[in-house]
Amino acid sequence: MGKGSYVEDDFQRDTTYIEDRITADGAGEREWPVEPGRYRLVVARACPWANRAIIVRRLLGLEDVLSMGLCGPTHDADSWTFDLDPGGVDPVLGIPRLKDAYEARFPGYPRGITVPAVVEVASGQVVTNDFAPLTLDLSTQWRDHHREGAPDLYPQALRPEMDAVMTRVYTEVNNGVYRCGFAGTQGAYEDAYDRLFTALDWLSDRLAGQRYLMGDTITEADVRLFTTLARFDPVYHGHFKCNRQKLSEQPVLWAYARDLFATPGFGDTTDFVQIKSHYYEVHTDINPTGVVPAGPDLAGWAEPHGREALGGRPFGDGTPPGPPPEGERVPTAHNPHVGPDGLVHL
Amino acid sequence: MGKGSYVEDDFQRDTTYIEDRITADGAGEREWPVEPGRYRLVVARACPWANRAIIVRRLLGLEDVLSMGLCGPTHDADSWTFDLDPGGVDPVLGIPRLKDAYEARFPGYPRGITVPAVVEVASGQVVTNDFAPLTLDLSTQWRDHHREGAPDLYPQALRPEMDAVMTRVYTEVNNGVYRCGFAGTQGAYEDAYDRLFTALDWLSDRLAGQRYLMGDTITEADVRLFTTLARFDPVYHGHFKCNRQKLSEQPVLWAYARDLFATPGFGDTTDFVQIKSHYYEVHTDINPTGVVPAGPDLAGWAEPHGREALGGRPFGDGTPPGPPPEGERVPTAHNPHVGPDGLVHL
Repeated sequence: MGKGSYVEDDFQRDTTYIEDRITADGAGEREWPVEPGRYRLVVARACPWANRAIIVRRLLGLEDVLSMGLCGPTHDADSWTFDLDPGGVDPVLGIPRLKDAYEARFPGYPRGITVPAVVEVASGQVVTNDFAPLTLDLSTQWRDHHREGAPDLYPQALRPEMDAVMTRVYTEVNNGVYRCGFAGTQGAYEDAYDRLFTALDWLSDRLAGQRYLMGDTITEADVRLFTTLARFDPVYHGHFKCNRQKLSEQPVLWAYARDLFATPGFGDTTDFVQIKSHYYEVHTDINPTGVVPAGPDLAGWAEPHGREALGGRPFGDGTPPGPPPEGERVPTAHNPHVGPDGLVHL
Repeated sequence: MGKGSYVEDDFQRDTTYIEDRITADGAGEREWPVEPGRYRLVVARACPWANRAIIVRRLLGLEDVLSMGLCGPTHDADSWTFDLDPGGVDPVLGIPRLKDAYEARFPGYPRGITVPAVVEVASGQVVTNDFAPLTLDLSTQWRDHHREGAPDLYPQALRPEMDAVMTRVYTEVNNGVYRCGFAGTQGAYEDAYDRLFTALDWLSDRLAGQRYLMGDTITEADVRLFTTLARFDPVYHGHFKCNRQKLSEQPVLWAYARDLFATPGFGDTTDFVQIKSHYYEVHTDINPTGVVPAGPDLAGWAEPHGREALGGRPFGDGTPPGPPPEGERVPTAHNPHVGPDGLVHL
């Protein structure tokens, strides 16, 4: 995401998005039809909300039907840019700034230029940046194009309970860390801190006896929690003052995070260098020097997590995805646990 | 200390102090004679350099001959003030600001108004703020006034090696954390981080097989290291980006710090609330919101440290000090391990 950072007495996320959806038949109002090659998913590896989409696309094997453009970790005044690409231009969309795709759709677009965003390649227009339904639609609407063995990340039978879990994870954890970091008063910060750690304790209890958030098998709920946990010690613990304990000092959550980290799709899409660079360089209102911490030591991610003892079938009736395509691999220099084939090897 | 915080490309501490000394006979140039009741030690519990003097005074039992004034943890534009005292005035010196005592000695005093400072009560003038010789002189020059059973914190036979250890602890650790926190460029920060953790690894190695820095018995070298370690997880890890690991993730140093923490004079002079308040509220150049982190959880300080297994005689031929005088106790609300008698109870 990333709508420009800001410190307020009580942090409020602007939750107004372009709410179009891409659906199997594209029949409803403001619906666009699923169509291989028609759209491009624009992300930044740094951003947890975009990382969610990167993981889901990879778990489902949508690489060949939905291409991916990668913004760099830091913003300029116009928000996310394609500064990592040769010439600073996205090779498919031909634009230097994600803002250009928003402007193509809505000239003078007044809200945040956020990732993830889906852009129609032919028109160069943003279709949607509504991150929450976006990934669920990848599971439910793009089903005809999933790889063989793709997991069911949003199983029909689990949805009522899963929606409640994901809501709490969103308000208290995914967004809760931002509420701590951008609190402008001591009182607002302390309230946010209590909410966050109350929720993390609840998650620890929930995960103490079961391998994944919804039971034996990975779902979208795990994807959503993982992207916050992966950023916890490198960023949120210090930068956002979420410092009751590090993730590595919360035994259940830490083992759970390491289990996912070692699962194809999770650790292999995690770019620690871009993650740290984004938060520490962009948020000059809370880190004026822009200096990026050299720590934490990442060796701990490779320690045995022991969660196999809880049983479980990570991919249910499906199978893990193979290695990511060559152009989509996180370099070892950005995540020491990623091997030359792009997979995490512990 | 605290000369106003500042971010520079490469942090340089202003090391120009008022270099007068208080000596047993006061015979030399710029020397003042030891005399019970003549001087007041002005400190702030927040400040590691002042905490050093608080610990040494207490270990040696100098409370009755050298009174102590306590500045609050935060500065105003004129630096340290007596804002904790009734009416905001030190009850002995009768001044609201430590600066007044510096001005009484040197009108227009151009350098930093720092703690610890020793003030002559009758004249209201600062005698010295030269923190490094100050505590060694408490050991060597005030010997006639030490309590019965006071330890020898600067033993003659150990001085050559001890001076070398203390120099390295000072340049690489005590000052090293500041060099990380106030680095104004990425390169200066990374160099500082490498220096700091190289030194902490050296200290871990040194302390793996011996209980204290100089062997079997506590010395001033341990006092100097302790005050930085006590601030490491509450402040330096996040605020100064010293984040390879927390202290609590460095097993030897963490056990060593807990051993000292439980020793009379160390944990019972450690005020975590004032420590956090000082750094996070005063350094608005690196923490613009002034929000003070609620963490870390301090429960870990009470875990058994197991260092007795290394043997040792903490106070050598001496004995530990008794409880601190009633007016000099750190409240439990500021350090959960301090009991009503002012001692740490684990």
